[in-house]
Amino acid sequence: MVLVNIILMGFGNVGKAFVRLIYQKDKSCERRYGLRLNLAAVLNSRGGVLFPEGAAGRNHLLDRNGAVDMRESPFWKTGRSLEEALEALQTGVFVECTPSDVKTGRPAIQFIRQAIDKGWHVVTANKGPLVVDLAGLRQSADKKGVSLGISGATAAALPTLDVALHSLAGTEIQCIEGILNGTSNYILTRMKEGVDYSTALEEAQEKGIAEPDPAQDVEGWDTAAKILIITNSVFEAAYTLSQVHVEGILNIPPELQAEARKKDEALKLIGRFDNRSGVPRLETKLSLITPIHPLYHVDGTQKGITFSTDTMGSVTVTGGKSDPRGAAAALLKDIINIVNR
Amino acid sequence: MVLVNIILMGFGNVGKAFVRLIYQKDKSCERRYGLRLNLAAVLNSRGGVLFPEGAAGRNHLLDRNGAVDMRESPFWKTGRSLEEALEALQTGVFVECTPSDVKTGRPAIQFIRQAIDKGWHVVTANKGPLVVDLAGLRQSADKKGVSLGISGATAAALPTLDVALHSLAGTEIQCIEGILNGTSNYILTRMKEGVDYSTALEEAQEKGIAEPDPAQDVEGWDTAAKILIITNSVFEAAYTLSQVHVEGILNIPPELQAEARKKDEALKLIGRFDNRSGVPRLETKLSLITPIHPLYHVDGTQKGITFSTDTMGSVTVTGGKSDPRGAAAALLKDIINIVNR
Repeated sequence: MVLVNIILMGFGNVGKAFVRLIYQKDKSCERRYGLRLNLAAVLNSRGGVLFPEGAAGRNHLLDRNGAVDMRESPFWKTGRSLEEALEALQTGVFVECTPSDVKTGRPAIQFIRQAIDKGWHVVTANKGPLVVDLAGLRQSADKKGVSLGISGATAAALPTLDVALHSLAGTEIQCIEGILNGTSNYILTRMKEGVDYSTALEEAQEKGIAEPDPAQDVEGWDTAAKILIITNSVFEAAYTLSQVHVEGILNIPPELQAEARKKDEALKLIGRFDNRSGVPRLETKLSLITPIHPLYHVDGTQKGITFSTDTMGSVTVTGGKSDPRGAAAALLKDIINIVNR
Repeated sequence: MVLVNIILMGFGNVGKAFVRLIYQKDKSCERRYGLRLNLAAVLNSRGGVLFPEGAAGRNHLLDRNGAVDMRESPFWKTGRSLEEALEALQTGVFVECTPSDVKTGRPAIQFIRQAIDKGWHVVTANKGPLVVDLAGLRQSADKKGVSLGISGATAAALPTLDVALHSLAGTEIQCIEGILNGTSNYILTRMKEGVDYSTALEEAQEKGIAEPDPAQDVEGWDTAAKILIITNSVFEAAYTLSQVHVEGILNIPPELQAEARKKDEALKLIGRFDNRSGVPRLETKLSLITPIHPLYHVDGTQKGITFSTDTMGSVTVTGGKSDPRGAAAALLKDIINIVNR
C-alpha cells in the first residue's frame, strides 16, 4: 500500500466535489490501485485545515448537515498558508482548484511553483497557469522529477490528452478539432432548433449551464485556452494565447445560419489545431460541419474531440460528465496514473 | 536512447504492415520517445530471418519491387524457430501476428508463453490466446516482470483498453457497449438503407471488407471474443467464451427491421458487458438503439465503444482505421507505452 498525501487548494464547487469523491473512493483506491489517499490539508484564500498524522478522515470535513465544509472543523485555522502545509507534510500530490485567470495565471501559478519546488506532484483543474506558462512549469517539474497532471483543465471527464499521448502514441497527429465548451455548444444547438441567441443564453443561465457573465464561453476564450493547452502539451510546444485566432458565437451572420439549415450542416464552435498544410494554425472558429463529421452529433452541453492521425485514421472521443463531480474524477484519475506510473 | 529488440512472428497482412511501419517510424520513435526500434527477427510457419547485430535495417525485407518480403533476404533460413531467435537476442518485445484460433489459441499461445518465459514483453494482434487464457498469460507475465500489450487484439486502432484502464482510472465502469466488428456493422448499415442481407454480404466481400468465409463476423463470434477480452482485462476477470450469450446478424426477424424503421432506431450488433443490475452479463446482441445512443451514428465499417461510469458519465470512442496499417499502429503504440512506462 502506498500512502498518497494530498493537499487541496481551492474550496469552490470542484474542490468540494473532490473532497466528497476522495471520501467515497478511498476504499476502492486501496483495493484496486494499492493507494491510500490521505487528504492531509485543504486550503482556500482565507485559511485552511491541516490534519495531524492519522487524523485525516471522512468526518472532519462534513458539517452536521452532511455538507462539505471546513469552517466547523477543529483543525481549521484562519490565515493558514500553502507553505505551512508543504512544510508539515511528506511529499505527495498538490491539487489546484482555485479560480482561473488566463491572463496572469495567478494566484495558482505561484502555488504550483511552490509545490513543485518542494518536490510535490501537481494535479490541476485550473487553466490559468497552463495558458500562461505550461512549458516553464513542465520544465520545473521535470527538473524536480515530479509530474504535472492537467486532465482537469483540458475538458476534465472527457479524455483528451490521455488519448493523444497514450492511445495515439507513435502516430503523427495532424489535426485536432474539439467542441470543448458546453455553454456555447448548448446555445448553438438551441439556435439550430430555431431559438434566438438571447433566449438560448437565458435558458442556459436558468439551467446553471452558463455563468452570469458568459463572456469567456461565448467569446471563445475558454475553448481557445483549452485547445492551446492541449496543443502545447501534445507537441511540447509553447504557443501563446495571442497566437490563437479566436472567434465566438456572438453576432453570427444570419446568412451562415441559413446556409447551415439549407445544407443540413451544423454550426459549431471548434477549437482547432491544424497542421495538415504544413503551416500550423491554432484557432477557435465558428465552423459549418457536415453530417459525416464526427463532431456533427455532439449537441447540447456535450463535448467531443477528434484527432486526425497518419496511421490510425481519425479517432473521436465524446461524452464525459460536465459537472464538478466529473472534474473531480479527472483530478483523481491523474493522481492514480501519476502515482502508479 | 533505449534499444528495443523486436521479434515478429507472423508475416500476413498485419505482419507486413508492421514491418513497413517500423521502417517508416524508426526516426520519429528515436526523436520523440528515445527508442531505437530494432526489428531483429521475423518469422512465420516456414522459417524466418534473423539479423546479426547491426544488420537490421530497412532494405533487408524489401524485395526489388519495394514489396515487403523475406524469402529474398540473405538472412532467410527455412525452418528457423522462435526458440532460436529468443536465444540469439537480448530481451525486447515479441510481436505476435499469426492467425487467430479462439478455440485452442494455438499456435500463438505457445509462442507467447515461450517469449514470456525468456523474459520478453509481448504485444499481440491475436485474439486466440487471450480468449483461451488471458489470466494465465497475465500471471506468467507478472511473475517474469514483463508486460502484455493487447491493443492489437481489442479493436486495434480504436482505443478501447487504454481508455478503460487509463482515462477512466478511478471510475467504476458499470457497462461497456461496443460496435466491434466492421463487417457486420457494414452489412447492418446497408440493410438499413434497404439492401437485403445476401446482397450486402456480397458487396462487403467484393470490397474486401468481409472474408470469403464470414462466419466469425456475422455469427457474432469476433465481437464476442473482443468484448470478452476487454471485460476480462478491465475487471481482471476470467470469463470464458461459453459464458457469453452470442447472437449474430443472420436471420434477423423482419418485424425487428420494420420496428427499427418505424421508430427511426438502428439495429446494431453490440458487444456488451452490463453490470448495472448487479448481476454481470456478457453478450453479443442484435440491439435496437435510439438516436440519442452514442453508437447510433457509428455506421459502415466504423467501430465504437461506450463506457458508462459512476463518476465521469458515459465516454464514447469512435473511429480508428480498420486496416492492417491501423492494426500495426496499435502494435507500435503498445511497444512505445510498454517500454516507456
